[in-house]
Amino acid sequence: MPSTTPGQRYSSKATEPAVNSSTQRIRDTKYRHVFATHSQTRPSCLSADAEKAPSFVGFRNLMILVLIVSNLRLMIENFRKYGVLICIRCHGYTKQDLLYGAALYLLVPIHLFVAYIIEWLAAQQAKGAVARMKKACEDHDKPEMQALARRSFNSTWRVVAFFHGINATFNLIIATSVVYYNIHHPGIGTLCELHAVIVWLKTCSYAFTNRDLRHALLHPNQSQPLPEIYASCPYPRNINFNNLCYFWWAPTLVYQPVYPRTTHIRWGFVFRRVVEVIGLSIVIWIASAQYAAPLLQNSLDKISILDFVSIVERVMKLSTISLFCWLCGFFALFQSFLNALAEVMKFGDREFYGEWWNVSSIRTYWTTWNKPVTNFMRRHVYSPLVGRGFPPALAQVIVFVISGLLHELLVGVPTHNVIGVAFAGMMFQIPLIALTDALQKLKGIRGKVAGNMIFWISFCLVGQPLAALLYFFAWHAKYGSVSKQFQQSPAMHFFHRR
Amino acid sequence: MPSTTPGQRYSSKATEPAVNSSTQRIRDTKYRHVFATHSQTRPSCLSADAEKAPSFVGFRNLMILVLIVSNLRLMIENFRKYGVLICIRCHGYTKQDLLYGAALYLLVPIHLFVAYIIEWLAAQQAKGAVARMKKACEDHDKPEMQALARRSFNSTWRVVAFFHGINATFNLIIATSVVYYNIHHPGIGTLCELHAVIVWLKTCSYAFTNRDLRHALLHPNQSQPLPEIYASCPYPRNINFNNLCYFWWAPTLVYQPVYPRTTHIRWGFVFRRVVEVIGLSIVIWIASAQYAAPLLQNSLDKISILDFVSIVERVMKLSTISLFCWLCGFFALFQSFLNALAEVMKFGDREFYGEWWNVSSIRTYWTTWNKPVTNFMRRHVYSPLVGRGFPPALAQVIVFVISGLLHELLVGVPTHNVIGVAFAGMMFQIPLIALTDALQKLKGIRGKVAGNMIFWISFCLVGQPLAALLYFFAWHAKYGSVSKQFQQSPAMHFFHRR
Repeated sequence: MPSTTPGQRYSSKATEPAVNSSTQRIRDTKYRHVFATHSQTRPSCLSADAEKAPSFVGFRNLMILVLIVSNLRLMIENFRKYGVLICIRCHGYTKQDLLYGAALYLLVPIHLFVAYIIEWLAAQQAKGAVARMKKACEDHDKPEMQALARRSFNSTWRVVAFFHGINATFNLIIATSVVYYNIHHPGIGTLCELHAVIVWLKTCSYAFTNRDLRHALLHPNQSQPLPEIYASCPYPRNINFNNLCYFWWAPTLVYQPVYPRTTHIRWGFVFRRVVEVIGLSIVIWIASAQYAAPLLQNSLDKISILDFVSIVERVMKLSTISLFCWLCGFFALFQSFLNALAEVMKFGDREFYGEWWNVSSIRTYWTTWNKPVTNFMRRHVYSPLVGRGFPPALAQVIVFVISGLLHELLVGVPTHNVIGVAFAGMMFQIPLIALTDALQKLKGIRGKVAGNMIFWISFCLVGQPLAALLYFFAWHAKYGSVSKQFQQSPAMHFFHRR
Repeated sequence: MPSTTPGQRYSSKATEPAVNSSTQRIRDTKYRHVFATHSQTRPSCLSADAEKAPSFVGFRNLMILVLIVSNLRLMIENFRKYGVLICIRCHGYTKQDLLYGAALYLLVPIHLFVAYIIEWLAAQQAKGAVARMKKACEDHDKPEMQALARRSFNSTWRVVAFFHGINATFNLIIATSVVYYNIHHPGIGTLCELHAVIVWLKTCSYAFTNRDLRHALLHPNQSQPLPEIYASCPYPRNINFNNLCYFWWAPTLVYQPVYPRTTHIRWGFVFRRVVEVIGLSIVIWIASAQYAAPLLQNSLDKISILDFVSIVERVMKLSTISLFCWLCGFFALFQSFLNALAEVMKFGDREFYGEWWNVSSIRTYWTTWNKPVTNFMRRHVYSPLVGRGFPPALAQVIVFVISGLLHELLVGVPTHNVIGVAFAGMMFQIPLIALTDALQKLKGIRGKVAGNMIFWISFCLVGQPLAALLYFFAWHAKYGSVSKQFQQSPAMHFFHRR
């Protein structure tokens, strides 16, 4: 038996064998069959007692490859089963859909201009009040001046708020009812509803911001300083047609008299972003038509007989495609489209999203994936509520309720099935936020990874495909083949209420 | 229109808005609807002009989840299609297989002891020669002494080499013919053949190493110093039964008189490794029986009619399972089993593998994934060839030819189909090495990633599943249902030569 080497376990003092010696060195060595391959004690690199943790970067590459290969295989399977399902001329829209859609596209922005007129009148009134205040100031009648300002502001605000409310509400009601009753095609309907909601949010922001600017003008002594960036265009100079038109097209939902701007338009940048939008739209269309559509179609009977294992299997299969479409759609809209628009508008602040894919808390997800809406909610809902003394947690719940209503409007109305799944999905975020917040506090890096996994599972792997399945089923329950085939199914009793 | 901010595009000097302010700060601020959400020009984090590259660690988590979900879905699909295929009593081996397997297990090591006897006799002869040399040295007859040593060494080596050759060759021939003709079950056959090859390699290493040690003893003046670690057990003291038995069980194929050793056995460590081996073996067995078997089975007819698209689809589906089994098997054998064995043997050098999963060159893969064989080939084939003047590239090709022959022996013989696929697979590594070596030189980090991808694709995603499919088909062509059904198929003409 060979004797043991003295000293500790795994002493690294032993000399390294000449394993990597050059060819010349091998040729010089006389005894080639005797060199000491094993000259030191050392652990395996995957063992817990290894000196440094091994790198697993190769497995990242492997995961990418396995994902590509498995999905290529599913594409072959899909093609052999269904052939080519993509068809350029097979659209589901009617002439009426297009006409109503075009009409809404042209008419909805009018509400923004109505808001402008309201604000213009309020600005005139404020100008008069300022003149009267100046006069009172010259007369050294300070209490009279303050009372004048308060009265002038409050009475005007009541009138202004009333007309703004009517205007904004009519925007939503008209667009929603036209989409629900007159536009059958869910794609066109979604675009119209989305446009109406965006204009509605812009109108609200325009009204709220100008209210506070007017308040600052009429209460020059009470007021805290306004942001420096607004100094170049003070109220009421910002109430002009060009300023409104800039806000109309700017890629933001938050009104500011002045925005940070870039100095010139890089047309090459715009061109690349537009190509991205077109390319990704085609990719999403192919993925939906060729892969998602047959999958949704052949899951209809599974849902109608409430075969839960099959529903789970369908949701799992659908999750990859819906995730793919979601990621492509996110990039196309938030990176490519909004950046192209911002470039053309010389809009400087391009923070349309944060690194939401790394979030470890669902709360952070909702504040980073869609910055335009987050900014709106923070400035016009959350901060004012907290400022008025609401507990922050309640203010957050209110934000989620509003967000849930808007989501239901955007999904339920164009699909003609206000079944509340989108709203319920938003409400379900609240306990998830509590869960991931608790996880964050509990552990270190593992808590972060667990939080991120919960986000992906709840949102992209379960939430979205399940919601897509339910709205698709509801659509077919109302219009499609299902309602004829499965009139007596248990699921039908739930969905088929019309 | 608001005026543009002066200065450069994306100047980061502008002040940060108080977006993340605390609740108290929000309550103190009077004008809540006017704070400047957009106060600076900044690019989107995914844009090329972003200040720092975004982190994508969340997508790594997503990939893991998608892989789990897609494979869980395939498991549901598999279960609904086939039910439970795992069956403890359904084995394919006969009593004869077990008897021959046990006989081989007991008899194969005898060849190592025959090698010991040969070396013992050679050592006795060398001792006599040393004594005669000492006498010549005392007579101050130096030329006579050197001639004596040369003659003594060369004549003995010819005899010793002849007997070692006979012994080692008989080992391989006997084991291979028994496995090929008498052991039907491929699993038992593979274990027996693997055992025989390991003992064959150990016998070769024992013979070669002791040859050089004897040479060093008989040429004390010509010789370069032997490794320091051998000093505690110089030749011929190492030719003893205990030393041989240690080498027989040590987790290495390279003979050294002395190995680095640990001081004690950690039985807890051994226990955990054994549990890993058992657990992973069960996992591999379930994966093969439930997932790989039906997949291989229903690809038989696709191969026999040479439906290439279907074969590609089957290889793609098989690749995930074969990759999974390969990774589990690698860990079970090289990490768990060899570490357990090394711990019991107090064998210090646990470098049984390197970080092969990160390799960017196929060459590095073959020198890191299986260190015991690499060490053998380097010490007993590559270095001696290069030392004798062979160009390194040719020496490498010879190593791959020997390795290819051993692979064919290990796969072709137990499956009773020496069809040369394993050998061809090894030979195909040579152009792949040239390709990845060229890639490495061309580019920086991208070359590394591309090399790693080529490794995974060629080896784990195409090579292994394709080879498994071909040997499985050849097996069924010889014994199974295929030969009856598809006697006239084109693939059959290739495989069915018996």
